Amino acid sequence: MKLPRSPLAPDRFAALPDIAGLRAATGSRGLYAAAGDDRPDTFLLAFDAGTRCAGVFTRSATASADVDWCRQALVAGGGKARALLVNAGNSNAFTGEFGQAKNAASLAALSGQFAVPREQCFLAATGVIGEPLPRPGYIAELVPELAGALDRPDWERCARAFMTTDTFAKGAARRGNGYSIAGIAKGSGMIAPNMATMLAYVFTDAELPAHQLDELLRSAADASFNRISVDGDTSTSDTLMAFATGAAGPVDIEAFAADLTATCRDLAELVVRDGEGARKLIRLRVSGAASEADATRVAASIANSPLVKTALAAGDANWGRIVMAVGNAGVEAARERLRIWFGDHLVAEQGGRAAGYSEAAAGAACAGDEVIIRVDLGVGASREIEFLTCDLTHAYIDINGAYRT
Amino acid sequence: MKLPRSPLAPDRFAALPDIAGLRAATGSRGLYAAAGDDRPDTFLLAFDAGTRCAGVFTRSATASADVDWCRQALVAGGGKARALLVNAGNSNAFTGEFGQAKNAASLAALSGQFAVPREQCFLAATGVIGEPLPRPGYIAELVPELAGALDRPDWERCARAFMTTDTFAKGAARRGNGYSIAGIAKGSGMIAPNMATMLAYVFTDAELPAHQLDELLRSAADASFNRISVDGDTSTSDTLMAFATGAAGPVDIEAFAADLTATCRDLAELVVRDGEGARKLIRLRVSGAASEADATRVAASIANSPLVKTALAAGDANWGRIVMAVGNAGVEAARERLRIWFGDHLVAEQGGRAAGYSEAAAGAACAGDEVIIRVDLGVGASREIEFLTCDLTHAYIDINGAYRT
Repeated sequence: MKLPRSPLAPDRFAALPDIAGLRAATGSRGLYAAAGDDRPDTFLLAFDAGTRCAGVFTRSATASADVDWCRQALVAGGGKARALLVNAGNSNAFTGEFGQAKNAASLAALSGQFAVPREQCFLAATGVIGEPLPRPGYIAELVPELAGALDRPDWERCARAFMTTDTFAKGAARRGNGYSIAGIAKGSGMIAPNMATMLAYVFTDAELPAHQLDELLRSAADASFNRISVDGDTSTSDTLMAFATGAAGPVDIEAFAADLTATCRDLAELVVRDGEGARKLIRLRVSGAASEADATRVAASIANSPLVKTALAAGDANWGRIVMAVGNAGVEAARERLRIWFGDHLVAEQGGRAAGYSEAAAGAACAGDEVIIRVDLGVGASREIEFLTCDLTHAYIDINGAYRT
Repeated sequence: MKLPRSPLAPDRFAALPDIAGLRAATGSRGLYAAAGDDRPDTFLLAFDAGTRCAGVFTRSATASADVDWCRQALVAGGGKARALLVNAGNSNAFTGEFGQAKNAASLAALSGQFAVPREQCFLAATGVIGEPLPRPGYIAELVPELAGALDRPDWERCARAFMTTDTFAKGAARRGNGYSIAGIAKGSGMIAPNMATMLAYVFTDAELPAHQLDELLRSAADASFNRISVDGDTSTSDTLMAFATGAAGPVDIEAFAADLTATCRDLAELVVRDGEGARKLIRLRVSGAASEADATRVAASIANSPLVKTALAAGDANWGRIVMAVGNAGVEAARERLRIWFGDHLVAEQGGRAAGYSEAAAGAACAGDEVIIRVDLGVGASREIEFLTCDLTHAYIDINGAYRT
């Protein structure tokens, strides 16, 4: 199934900086050959000694073998990183002992190739769940060729190599005072916030201890990937990792933290802009909750409501469904204090339709390819958080009825 | 928008018994006139003195004014009932002071007509959220006409009078030893289990104190309406009420409880069979959880996954998405102990695809208009519970993009 480029895609792949201390290569294991596509489906990153890393992963109770390994390696290796090997086309999730054998083969190949401990090598895979590869060494066999091709990264090519139902490659970057950050992500369906979402990697030349990188990454994930949803389904393979080569030396932590969060937010937005079948990007801005966590739950309840998403797909300002989703969020709310805006137009207050309600004004706010819906719960002092989602269209159904075939 | 009859609909409306001690009438307030339809949109039930009632309602924090009233009346009136007035076409939810004025007018009309206390009169409304009726007395004005037409109930006509996007009228019944139970329900979208779901009424001639009826109804709701989902969205108006006229005298409570639950399960299944756009009824049977509550959460996670629902719409036995939804349910689960069957065919065990897996056999289990998926978590001793849902098709999107227009 050849998917057209999302109408919400940016004009071009962002300009991503080189990151001193790492090299990259892409290759193909033919995992899309059955679909008549010989696209790159695998990439390798090699890091200089001294690189530190951190990661946040899916909370799924049926996480993939690759996620299991990364968690284990982060602890065993103390956050040191020398290699990252990622493939699309097969998620190696729910593949039992085979999945562990596949990882063992890949790790042996990486460890031997670079003469580094296995615990400093990280893996990820994305694609169909539950189908074993032709043999455990199938990805490992590509390692020598990839290692021979390592060079300054072609970030767009890397970002293409782990696309599945994605319709465009996703990159984001920030240049700080003396350091750079480059990030790539993939994700389009099975997108819901629960720690991290799908596969995203952020690389920097900043020098940071692993524990500090871990702390900054968790905070960035909470403000980015944990505030998006395409379809409310959390993946078995969700992974967000950050790698800091240290080549640029120590940095201003506050500025770096802000840039890291901004990079993650850009990537998270790109994932939603490529939401399966999406035609509209929806910005949900929620304030006045008892806490930011409550505000996020309200936003997620709206974002995951098929009734809200189908109404917006049709350009219908059906604000009653926003009321329903707020009521359904399981957090402190009071019908009479709730206020809802479509764009700048107040549609609901004091337990009913706003006095100045205009169907035309509300409809106009839903007409474009970006819709802003603001909700103030009026029960607490939580600041406005932004949560991103997309509409639910016929294309989502077509894509997901045909995914395995 | 004229919707075709669901392909999952039963051949005909069930044969419902007369219930001694009550009379019914239907009428039209023209709430569908804008759509060129002069269908009945309101019904009235009148109960003899001595009738007892109980109810379970939406847990939404933005419940409708009618739900507010019913909760209040049950407490204030001690579970005595003399009248029930229900309309479709407008839910009277999030209508602020207007909504309360509408209820006051309706209650005044009922109380005056039958010379009974307001607290023995119950109301419900279903339809668009947030739009006030032309005037508060709009429904009340029909009460004299309805009261004049009260007669032995035409149950199918009553069930038709509160349909919204429903494509068929829903009724179920049981005849016990010396008593009868008749139930009607409406519901098609905004269907998710959270106490009760949408509007359903069960009537019996059995004699029961209100507190006992309440207890039996809660238990029946847990095993029926709280185990279905069409789209994961909980309505602002969910109401399940039971009315017992007592005309048949005391009954065997155990047998009655089983019949009440069976009636509610039949009605709940009919709601799913009329799920918006549904083409397949999906029976999720979950066992081996730490508790029945955990099993229900796992089933709900599967039932509410758009990825599962779209795959099944296409007849694709994408069992990896069942693994994903189990992992995502937030309950105790162990990847290696999980077993999944499509029909009688074991597809997954020991953390991977089952040894005897056959794509043809799994696909065949998804081909018909009824799909049975069995999940054993293998972590506890909970008995099998059945949870019903339906597939997600293009028609759901069409219906919900056009609902207000």
